[in-house]
Amino acid sequence: MNNESIILGIDPGTNYMGYGVISVDRNHARFIAHGVIDLHKITDPYLTLSAIFTELTRIIDTYLPDEMAIEAPFFGKNVQSMLKLGRAQGVAITAAIQHQIPITEYAPLKIKMAITGNGNASKEQVADMLRRLMNIPAADMPTHLDATDALAAAYCHYIQKKRPSSAAKKYSSWKDFVSKNPDKSH
Amino acid sequence: MNNESIILGIDPGTNYMGYGVISVDRNHARFIAHGVIDLHKITDPYLTLSAIFTELTRIIDTYLPDEMAIEAPFFGKNVQSMLKLGRAQGVAITAAIQHQIPITEYAPLKIKMAITGNGNASKEQVADMLRRLMNIPAADMPTHLDATDALAAAYCHYIQKKRPSSAAKKYSSWKDFVSKNPDKSH
Repeated sequence: MNNESIILGIDPGTNYMGYGVISVDRNHARFIAHGVIDLHKITDPYLTLSAIFTELTRIIDTYLPDEMAIEAPFFGKNVQSMLKLGRAQGVAITAAIQHQIPITEYAPLKIKMAITGNGNASKEQVADMLRRLMNIPAADMPTHLDATDALAAAYCHYIQKKRPSSAAKKYSSWKDFVSKNPDKSH
Repeated sequence: MNNESIILGIDPGTNYMGYGVISVDRNHARFIAHGVIDLHKITDPYLTLSAIFTELTRIIDTYLPDEMAIEAPFFGKNVQSMLKLGRAQGVAITAAIQHQIPITEYAPLKIKMAITGNGNASKEQVADMLRRLMNIPAADMPTHLDATDALAAAYCHYIQKKRPSSAAKKYSSWKDFVSKNPDKSH
């Protein structure tokens, strides 16, 4: 991580998908962009998934991220909501895979902990800390919490990259995977 | 449904993904192909999703289906398994959307009911009925149950198309959706 690289954080949901883009080098993280894809007016579930794929592909083509960090709850209220969430995640992951972008997932609690030191921090506390950490002008701060969550996921990944000892679910490209697991490539 | 069209049935799972291809016209369904994508040796979950996307895209490019039918359980054992299943479904749906292929989902019980008249039929009974309905030579019958399930999903969709009154979750392309819902396209 000597050179500058772009991290795209996303918070994939079926009502809103938040995204946040930062540029990082070894010692510094710089805010670039954030936003929300509004999906809640799309009534057909396939059109929702289609919109996630299309919009996320557009975001990837715009910011050319080197890595993607996903906020991914591993537990949910019920099986129905987890199936919906899984579909949205699957589509987002596919968009990244199609662009050969390595993916790392972080649980919401881990993200809050990484940024504020408190896994139970409020979303406002996370947003405030992000603003300070990257000197983001108040006017540029996301007003939508899904965008804040996505920006937090990206920043969390930046911190993890500086401390590679911390365990996180790590994507390996096929090339990486084959080179590390020559016996598993068949 | 006056002309012949190709239906691709899939049973997307994270251990095996079954597929079955049939050619149908108004009065007749013909078996074309079936198979299983073996995913259970892939240990990295992203590589599993990547393999689903790549292989399903290859299958779509090979058989050029006009429609896709998915066997999709809407309830599962626990939230973890539903999240995994949702991801696999999301990837499969994305592959179809990328090729502008309309998608219809059927619950396992509905598929069994459509083919055997009994929602509690065994997989062997479903396979036997499929063999009779399409005069499939015994040697051509799938030996893997995920392939049978996929073929059954395709056949179920054929039956549904003949009886359009039966309700099924129906995909609309953007074009269809916009033309049918001019007020919802924004």
